[in-house]
Amino acid sequence: MTDRRQFRDLVSPAEARAAIDSLDLAPDPETVPLDAARGRVLAERIDAELDVPGFDRASVDGYAVRARDTFGADEADPIVLDRIGTVHAGAEPDVEVQEGTCAEISTGAVLPPGADAVVMVERTDETDAGIAIRTSVAPGDRVMVAGADVAAGSRAFGPGTLITPREIGLLSALGVDDVPVRGTPTVGIVSTGDELVRPGETLHSEAGQIYDVNSYTIAAGVEEAGGEAVLYPHAGDDYDEMEQLLVKAADECDLVLSSGSTSASAVDVIYRVIEREGELLLHGVSVKPGKPMLVGRLEDSAYVGLPGYPVSALTIFRTFVAPAIREAAGLPEPRTATVEGEMAVRERYSEGRTRLMPVGLVEDGSGDTLVYPVDKGSGATTSLVEADGIVEVDADTDYLAAGETVGVQLFSPDVRAPTLLGVGEDDPALSRLLDRLERPRYLDVGSRQGRRRLRDGVPDVAVVSGPSDRDTDAVDLGGWTREWGLVVPTDNPAGIDSLADLIDRDLRFVNRSTDAGLRASLDAELDRLADRRGTDRRDLTDAVDGYELTVKGFESPARKVIGGAADAGLGLRATADALDCGFVPLGTESVRVLADPDRTDKPGVVALDDAIESALDDVVANLAGFDA
Amino acid sequence: MTDRRQFRDLVSPAEARAAIDSLDLAPDPETVPLDAARGRVLAERIDAELDVPGFDRASVDGYAVRARDTFGADEADPIVLDRIGTVHAGAEPDVEVQEGTCAEISTGAVLPPGADAVVMVERTDETDAGIAIRTSVAPGDRVMVAGADVAAGSRAFGPGTLITPREIGLLSALGVDDVPVRGTPTVGIVSTGDELVRPGETLHSEAGQIYDVNSYTIAAGVEEAGGEAVLYPHAGDDYDEMEQLLVKAADECDLVLSSGSTSASAVDVIYRVIEREGELLLHGVSVKPGKPMLVGRLEDSAYVGLPGYPVSALTIFRTFVAPAIREAAGLPEPRTATVEGEMAVRERYSEGRTRLMPVGLVEDGSGDTLVYPVDKGSGATTSLVEADGIVEVDADTDYLAAGETVGVQLFSPDVRAPTLLGVGEDDPALSRLLDRLERPRYLDVGSRQGRRRLRDGVPDVAVVSGPSDRDTDAVDLGGWTREWGLVVPTDNPAGIDSLADLIDRDLRFVNRSTDAGLRASLDAELDRLADRRGTDRRDLTDAVDGYELTVKGFESPARKVIGGAADAGLGLRATADALDCGFVPLGTESVRVLADPDRTDKPGVVALDDAIESALDDVVANLAGFDA
Repeated sequence: MTDRRQFRDLVSPAEARAAIDSLDLAPDPETVPLDAARGRVLAERIDAELDVPGFDRASVDGYAVRARDTFGADEADPIVLDRIGTVHAGAEPDVEVQEGTCAEISTGAVLPPGADAVVMVERTDETDAGIAIRTSVAPGDRVMVAGADVAAGSRAFGPGTLITPREIGLLSALGVDDVPVRGTPTVGIVSTGDELVRPGETLHSEAGQIYDVNSYTIAAGVEEAGGEAVLYPHAGDDYDEMEQLLVKAADECDLVLSSGSTSASAVDVIYRVIEREGELLLHGVSVKPGKPMLVGRLEDSAYVGLPGYPVSALTIFRTFVAPAIREAAGLPEPRTATVEGEMAVRERYSEGRTRLMPVGLVEDGSGDTLVYPVDKGSGATTSLVEADGIVEVDADTDYLAAGETVGVQLFSPDVRAPTLLGVGEDDPALSRLLDRLERPRYLDVGSRQGRRRLRDGVPDVAVVSGPSDRDTDAVDLGGWTREWGLVVPTDNPAGIDSLADLIDRDLRFVNRSTDAGLRASLDAELDRLADRRGTDRRDLTDAVDGYELTVKGFESPARKVIGGAADAGLGLRATADALDCGFVPLGTESVRVLADPDRTDKPGVVALDDAIESALDDVVANLAGFDA
Repeated sequence: MTDRRQFRDLVSPAEARAAIDSLDLAPDPETVPLDAARGRVLAERIDAELDVPGFDRASVDGYAVRARDTFGADEADPIVLDRIGTVHAGAEPDVEVQEGTCAEISTGAVLPPGADAVVMVERTDETDAGIAIRTSVAPGDRVMVAGADVAAGSRAFGPGTLITPREIGLLSALGVDDVPVRGTPTVGIVSTGDELVRPGETLHSEAGQIYDVNSYTIAAGVEEAGGEAVLYPHAGDDYDEMEQLLVKAADECDLVLSSGSTSASAVDVIYRVIEREGELLLHGVSVKPGKPMLVGRLEDSAYVGLPGYPVSALTIFRTFVAPAIREAAGLPEPRTATVEGEMAVRERYSEGRTRLMPVGLVEDGSGDTLVYPVDKGSGATTSLVEADGIVEVDADTDYLAAGETVGVQLFSPDVRAPTLLGVGEDDPALSRLLDRLERPRYLDVGSRQGRRRLRDGVPDVAVVSGPSDRDTDAVDLGGWTREWGLVVPTDNPAGIDSLADLIDRDLRFVNRSTDAGLRASLDAELDRLADRRGTDRRDLTDAVDGYELTVKGFESPARKVIGGAADAGLGLRATADALDCGFVPLGTESVRVLADPDRTDKPGVVALDDAIESALDDVVANLAGFDA
């Protein structure tokens, strides 16, 4: 905990960009085969080395003629020519067209010597005397002369041309099978932290292990930006091990990125390696998140240290690093990398440094894009998929007003606003309905938060359960009921048969948070029990061991029970059923889907309404305790 | 030429789409490793199988405590606790926090047994007596409880989710290393036509061979649309060979595309194979281009026959086939697949069938997108790179008015309007200037066409050479001069020393077309010679063997001379120099870069202006006969 670095001289985001720009990530150009050239960028100008077509070419099926032999021919008075042979496409002509003769010719075939025009077959007849030509043609008619499409020596492509299918087409026509392209920057990714385990390996939660989120995420970001990602085995916090790994990565890659360590000591080790073995250009940027960013050089490579929290790492990568990789690869920023929208709510901010604010997108009833802040704390990986991009807020901005237009840098060019934004209670029937929609987003913030957010005008729908005042002017799209109660171990070994048991006996309980509709149903039931006992709810809940122990998901209490950490948990009969637990029923609550009245015509809301109408019976059919 | 099929029952484009939709291209879902999942689409819903984090986790560096031990502590009156050990991230705690004790803890480490909160290190001091805690904390402070980020059992992703880096992030956090994704449709590409040679193979132009453009182009289109392309060796027009190839492709792929044959007989062979071995759903669509499209089934696969001309093939692929491949892969149409713009010019059309009109894009002075038709005939491969996409014009539309808003289906989501649209003379100095710009487009239509198009308001600049009336209100951005004359074989074996030699001697000449400024300079020189001889130009040109033989590119006449097809060609000293030819100077002409007065502030025009200003001297320095 000693030797903690202070970030005394934070630089501005613009200075950080300049520092990264000063690193040269661009590898040497290379040559790739044509069938691997899509998405690459030409390293140099390409001039046509040959004429296209390479020969005078018939552009229709018909007869190759000497134009002057056809002068005067018309429908009424055809001229008859001797057919002396046939020229097929892809064959060298073995005939010469002389006065009074013609050669049958296919589209694309070489115009035979002597001929200077083609008569299309539709204007001819085969007769016993020969081929009757019913039209006169001029020299060059129905002939594409050599080089008419592309002339040898002409400029075909400039350097920097992005190769899409159509460029592949012209390169094919020119016979270019080795394509000189900008090199692909290789980006080494070093994740640090003793607690990290790669997905696919065994996770020991009891030892504080977590899955390494940044390595694959940043690798995917690198590849999306046109780089090639190289993953290195994760390093511990030992100086020698870290130095060896970073130097190896620097030897092998154009850019080295580190991330993943959340401990100050590991950051410090990296810091010392870069400072001693390379050159540290900056340490600390006046930006939130991302303050502890490092930029430097190591061997002949560039180095950027990303923050450890996934959203922070992706944000800093998106803002500072991806543009540099694109630039090195010669790729333009995709047109879809940014969108504009209006702030859905007012957002205050004044911390004296630039804020890279994670935001979500939602379309309002008119199809306009609204932008809302997603702030779950940088440690939350769920922010990754709940945010669509970031809004860069200047250090001297005090607040963004509702309705203010902002630019959003999307996390990926492929990101777009969801078709439906729902918030509220988590519920297994709802999950199945959502599966039937295209690209919905659902935030399980609980019924209470759901109602509040719907009133604030951000989401399209809120899904709520439990007792409610129905004080909103939301449109009710329908709903279902679900049986709730206590999830207990299989066969209910403790013989729990009512809520009173939790109060009167020595049992360990697991609750849901007050945002959950299910919790509101429990509290209402406790109120009734308190009434019957002539006391108040607080007296009862004080007697419940674990009443204050709340967990997040609708299955979480049941999972605590299964894990032996509790004797009973608040939950659904459907959950008890799915997880093979026992169940003590306490009631049935209603789940309602409420829509913002201005969004009922939005396609995603209509689709949800349709799904409730058409699929709800199916959906609840095999969910125990559910009723449509 | 017999057995020619008639397209008697052309179906509408909508019917063609329905026929293709009726073919099932979607392969079975598959599982891919997480590091190969980017860009794929989830085949099923993924629920969290574990809590994230999987343990109660310190969210800061500091000390793990029993919250009740800190009650009453503040800056003035700290409470001192015994430090009993340390818990590192990624390690299982080996201490238990009991009354009056604390454990040092790193961010991300497991909260040790007994502790229920963390005090951040900044609010503590190490003293001789122990750790002084300068603040009181509540249970749960600075602790992220297990499952607080993602709760086991919660819905993480719906089916149909496109996997971008952020989804990789949450999948990583959940430890999902095998990702169930939609299958990638495999698309077999069969090119037909005896005249086709793959790029990289030897081309025999004399035998009418041309490079196969469609195979790689369509393969790139298939991959861009999310399919996997499989190229088959090209087939001749023989029924048995074609049947064998098509059946093999159908066995191995979800969809078979054929194209590349421009001869009616080959199309006919394919037609018969599909009809006899499979099922032909439609033959002929009322659309231009693309009338002879085939749709059918072969074995268990789908089959679509594309037209042979590259632009037609890509157009039909883009309009009918790419959407079906995307659909089969589960991929949404990219947001950038279409743009809107205003017609730059009036375009007439009335052929009674839907027109898929190739168009180019250009931004006007205000940054609005203008759309102009590119019609070079379907045989021109250059249309591929000169057009950006297609406008679908209804069969009953007589014309599109200038200024009318149209939707453009881009040939690729990566296509965008060029930064600069230039037209006019081809010139080697210009080519080098263009190399210094980002994504310019230049159409070498010659000076005459260039002037006309600039007046029509489509391009940003026109580059013109030769004598001119200067009748435009265009802005002159500058220019250079170039020496022109007759390019002759090395050492001028025929001893040509003036224009008169072409007239008075028996020499074969190659000219440029009347659109070329160079040709206008030649004609002006001939006018002067005619004046001197007291005759008119026509008398002189009649005596020049080859005066009417015009070729397209500025190097083309020289290349004819090198090939032995002519004794002299119209050209530049720089060309003679570059190709090691002899040169007979006839004059010096001026090349001017003229800008549309409304576009002079457009970034691409400014960049060209800057390049002329700063780089012209460099550019002309090693071009013989050029002067800035």
